[in-house]
Amino acid sequence: MPFDIRAIEWVDNAVTLLDQSRLPLAEVNLRVTTVAQMIDAINRLAVRGAPSLGVVGAYGVVIALDEAARENWSPSRLNQELDALRDARPTAVNLAWGVNQVRELIPQGREAALALAQKIALEDFNSGAAMGNNGADWLIAKLGDKKFNLLTHCNTGSLATTGTGTALGVIKELHSRGNVNEVFVDETRPLLQGSRLTAWELGKCQIPYRIQPDGAAAMAILGGKVDAALIGADRIAKNGDSTNKIGSLGVALACHIAGIPFLVVAPESTVDRSMADGSGTHIEIRADREITHIGDLQVAPDGARTFNPAFDVTPAKFVSVVVTELQTYDIAGGKSL
Amino acid sequence: MPFDIRAIEWVDNAVTLLDQSRLPLAEVNLRVTTVAQMIDAINRLAVRGAPSLGVVGAYGVVIALDEAARENWSPSRLNQELDALRDARPTAVNLAWGVNQVRELIPQGREAALALAQKIALEDFNSGAAMGNNGADWLIAKLGDKKFNLLTHCNTGSLATTGTGTALGVIKELHSRGNVNEVFVDETRPLLQGSRLTAWELGKCQIPYRIQPDGAAAMAILGGKVDAALIGADRIAKNGDSTNKIGSLGVALACHIAGIPFLVVAPESTVDRSMADGSGTHIEIRADREITHIGDLQVAPDGARTFNPAFDVTPAKFVSVVVTELQTYDIAGGKSL
Repeated sequence: MPFDIRAIEWVDNAVTLLDQSRLPLAEVNLRVTTVAQMIDAINRLAVRGAPSLGVVGAYGVVIALDEAARENWSPSRLNQELDALRDARPTAVNLAWGVNQVRELIPQGREAALALAQKIALEDFNSGAAMGNNGADWLIAKLGDKKFNLLTHCNTGSLATTGTGTALGVIKELHSRGNVNEVFVDETRPLLQGSRLTAWELGKCQIPYRIQPDGAAAMAILGGKVDAALIGADRIAKNGDSTNKIGSLGVALACHIAGIPFLVVAPESTVDRSMADGSGTHIEIRADREITHIGDLQVAPDGARTFNPAFDVTPAKFVSVVVTELQTYDIAGGKSL
Repeated sequence: MPFDIRAIEWVDNAVTLLDQSRLPLAEVNLRVTTVAQMIDAINRLAVRGAPSLGVVGAYGVVIALDEAARENWSPSRLNQELDALRDARPTAVNLAWGVNQVRELIPQGREAALALAQKIALEDFNSGAAMGNNGADWLIAKLGDKKFNLLTHCNTGSLATTGTGTALGVIKELHSRGNVNEVFVDETRPLLQGSRLTAWELGKCQIPYRIQPDGAAAMAILGGKVDAALIGADRIAKNGDSTNKIGSLGVALACHIAGIPFLVVAPESTVDRSMADGSGTHIEIRADREITHIGDLQVAPDGARTFNPAFDVTPAKFVSVVVTELQTYDIAGGKSL
């Protein structure tokens, strides 16, 4: 597995985070030893990405236990702090999941809690390697053992997980096998995870890339510049309908019309088999300001309204395969998950 | 015709321009009385849009004649100045066309030159009204006399023409007939003509709108939020293949899959009947910095490469109709231009 960047590490009884809010202009590590520091890092998006939030939630419980011992917190104070950590981003289910998993082990002591947090991190790390292999194997079997031009959207790499990533992990694995010519990176408006984070990761891995406006994806795909597109997912229904960062659907439609593979790559924990399809998926609508301003620069008229959904749902009929750490599901062939 | 904004006017022997580089934050008029001022306005994109550039090129010749009289220019100096004006934006064919048209009349005197420049401006103005009517008539005949939710990309209104516009002119005409509920405005990366200019124009016309990231267009369209999409064009081949601002193709693909109309609106002068199809269209590739920076803010790693085509080509099979000032061409019905 081509591993490269460690955005989250447990070192000397602290969590070391690569501060994503500073990328790509500065690479600054944060050493987190208190619950308040961890909540601040989550709120500032110094750490982001669903799998990553599960891991920092898990480690955060250990940090709380150590802080409680140093500061002589009462049991009720400890509970308040853990509740605040769990709720720091209420829409991210993984954060609460990570906190709750480790919190249950508190009666067994600090070392048991740390061991579980490390196990959660290791499982996340290992699932990236398995997804990378499964996706790379499938694409090479599908298109032949050659150099590919690939397209991706948003950030699904070592900055969103503790390992190599999901879709970006497959791209890195393909690169390590000598199968990548160039990666087209959608800049991913409004928050520019593509240009800020994915481009930075690809540069670190010495994988050639070009950043493009999201609107250029259809031209790149229909113009024959791209062999396959790979994205992550935030939720996948049983039939293969896949919820991911806004803009993913347009990429899928262009791939469908061009007849090239569109791969959704995500861990099994992202598959929601309680949903028959994606029609009931709740889509978060975000603030106008993400569209009307870029940094402090106003780019729209005063009072402009926006349509700013964080995610879209790609119907299964436009998905070739869903790749997880366990297997590659042949959605185009009529399989479900 | 619902007319509203005059971005280019001949007033008191000068061209008054609404400075588009200052929108949407400030509405500043420029009074242009010298060739140097006009070239500066063109270079700074204070005036932009293919039809608009033809008009300012035409008026610019009159300004040069007046300046030559005031400053006692030699005939060779006058020619140098006119050449510089013509070449201020070498890729915009309309600018050279406007300069050349009026320049030929110089032997007939200043009043003849002014009369032709005003005729060119009036024809551009009138073509907008005719396109507006043709497009509105077609859409109402197609979908019924009801309130539409419409989607548009880039800026094709009074800031790109001297009149009501092309695609945006159709939207304004539909609004004047009571047929518009809301307009979804693609922000149009990288230069944000949608959020900066189209949103401003719609606000001025009191037409309800929402700005969306370009990547949200597919979701809005497939989610049933949009009844039809309308765009302009920079060049239309005889078979209906339409070249327009990058991102137009993705809108067309989503409309095709959703089964809703996709209208291309442009004056007859945009139709290039010497091209059988769009396959030979030269696509301008623009600078990396438009993608890697927004204003002065760097949003990508140092040295990042980009794919930044200014335009894409929508194949005729994804175009419902081409609307000009003369007629509405039924491209989906197999007609050519």
